[in-house]
Amino acid sequence: MEKMERNRLFRDAKEWILEAGKEIRNKMSDPFEVDTKSNPNDLVTTMDRNTEKYFVDRIKTKYPDHLLLSEEGFGDDVRSLDGTVWIIDPIDGTMNFVQQKRNFAISIGIYHHGIGEIGLIYNVMEDVLYHAIRGEGAYKNGERLPHLKSGAVLEESVIGLNHFWLCENRLVEEKAMQKLVKTARGTRTYGSAALEFAFVAEGVLEGYITMSLSPWDIAAGVILVDEVGGISTDIDGNQLNLVEKSSVFTSHPSIHRRIIEDFIQKGRK
Amino acid sequence: MEKMERNRLFRDAKEWILEAGKEIRNKMSDPFEVDTKSNPNDLVTTMDRNTEKYFVDRIKTKYPDHLLLSEEGFGDDVRSLDGTVWIIDPIDGTMNFVQQKRNFAISIGIYHHGIGEIGLIYNVMEDVLYHAIRGEGAYKNGERLPHLKSGAVLEESVIGLNHFWLCENRLVEEKAMQKLVKTARGTRTYGSAALEFAFVAEGVLEGYITMSLSPWDIAAGVILVDEVGGISTDIDGNQLNLVEKSSVFTSHPSIHRRIIEDFIQKGRK
Repeated sequence: MEKMERNRLFRDAKEWILEAGKEIRNKMSDPFEVDTKSNPNDLVTTMDRNTEKYFVDRIKTKYPDHLLLSEEGFGDDVRSLDGTVWIIDPIDGTMNFVQQKRNFAISIGIYHHGIGEIGLIYNVMEDVLYHAIRGEGAYKNGERLPHLKSGAVLEESVIGLNHFWLCENRLVEEKAMQKLVKTARGTRTYGSAALEFAFVAEGVLEGYITMSLSPWDIAAGVILVDEVGGISTDIDGNQLNLVEKSSVFTSHPSIHRRIIEDFIQKGRK
Repeated sequence: MEKMERNRLFRDAKEWILEAGKEIRNKMSDPFEVDTKSNPNDLVTTMDRNTEKYFVDRIKTKYPDHLLLSEEGFGDDVRSLDGTVWIIDPIDGTMNFVQQKRNFAISIGIYHHGIGEIGLIYNVMEDVLYHAIRGEGAYKNGERLPHLKSGAVLEESVIGLNHFWLCENRLVEEKAMQKLVKTARGTRTYGSAALEFAFVAEGVLEGYITMSLSPWDIAAGVILVDEVGGISTDIDGNQLNLVEKSSVFTSHPSIHRRIIEDFIQKGRK
């Protein structure tokens, strides 16, 4: 992708994500908006759809030849990453949105012929914007995130992990994952894949493992993690497929292979 | 405890916790302080001790007849809650402090003849202060937290839970806890007991269960949760003992008994 074109795209995507986030924050503090919905799921459905439509409108007007892959289905029927594709999650961390009214994000990944060029993750209620441009680094509120420190070891690492992996599941023996929990220094669960990717890029988590995610959950995160030297694959170590659901394991490079070989693979069904 | 005396105590405790937190924030942004420690554990040890000494100095000077129960051992050898006892954790969420440089808190509970009168939990890096005064409510940055909404149900609840409970442990059958994970709407792990208590008081979590905590991890939190109508017990439903280590289960009142009876008790070893 041509650099000036990419910069223009980035400026637009940044302006739109901040504006969409501000709109959500305004609505969240409006008692009419929050109280008149019969249940919290109506609230999230409305916000999810409105936010997605906001992006569809802007992208289709300004970039009519771009495609849009997104959760609520107002985008295109995208089956490959040919051309320029915006992969958008209007609200990542739906349960947090509903239950906590915080700890959710808008996630935008922009891919050009399959290559991740721009990633943005906006923690809406905290007003924290992570962004990455391929080859130009990852940033948190405009400040460059340092490259991941060399030589992480699992015994001193904190891993993001959903509790379901430690219960009986169809993908991996729970005992193998329990061994991982006992080996790592600690484990955390935050409930937003996009934010957990951002935490890996920040070095707040050394890794994040999850069973089944959609492209819009991870499209921005993988670009962010990549820009600080991290690795993102599926749980078997294969390249991620960004047009289908997939398991995901993103981490510091020093612990990636060991977690796959010594824990996940040994428990793989 | 007499009301004017309690108000004076609260004003002092609030001033000191904010000042101690500010000092930690300053040190955390000082590269000399952070980089010259040979390893992150030295950093936390230094901050922990300095913060605790800060409180010991002030309390012993202004309130010489009060006792102080705290993690690093500069306080008193407290075996009962007779008199007025300050129960202090200078840094709750040590692993977060070391690994994440955020998501930790200072916790102060003030007890008078065994009754929790004042609780303060300060999320240092976010500059968010939770406080509660017995009978006068719980607050977040000065804004009163509403009473917990009636009628929570487990299937719509998010529970704070360490991953260890889902692995083989000496207290409870992991299968019973796995069943709890599959029944609740969601589970989260944040790594700071004090903050997880605050999240229960805020309604961000409906409950928080943990295996083994010390008095200073929970002394402030139980007062906070109590003031919004929540319940805190050990995992068998017994009253908490605030001078010894204990398991802890704090939650919305509507789900407390069910979680104990249908999940924890059924798996209790």
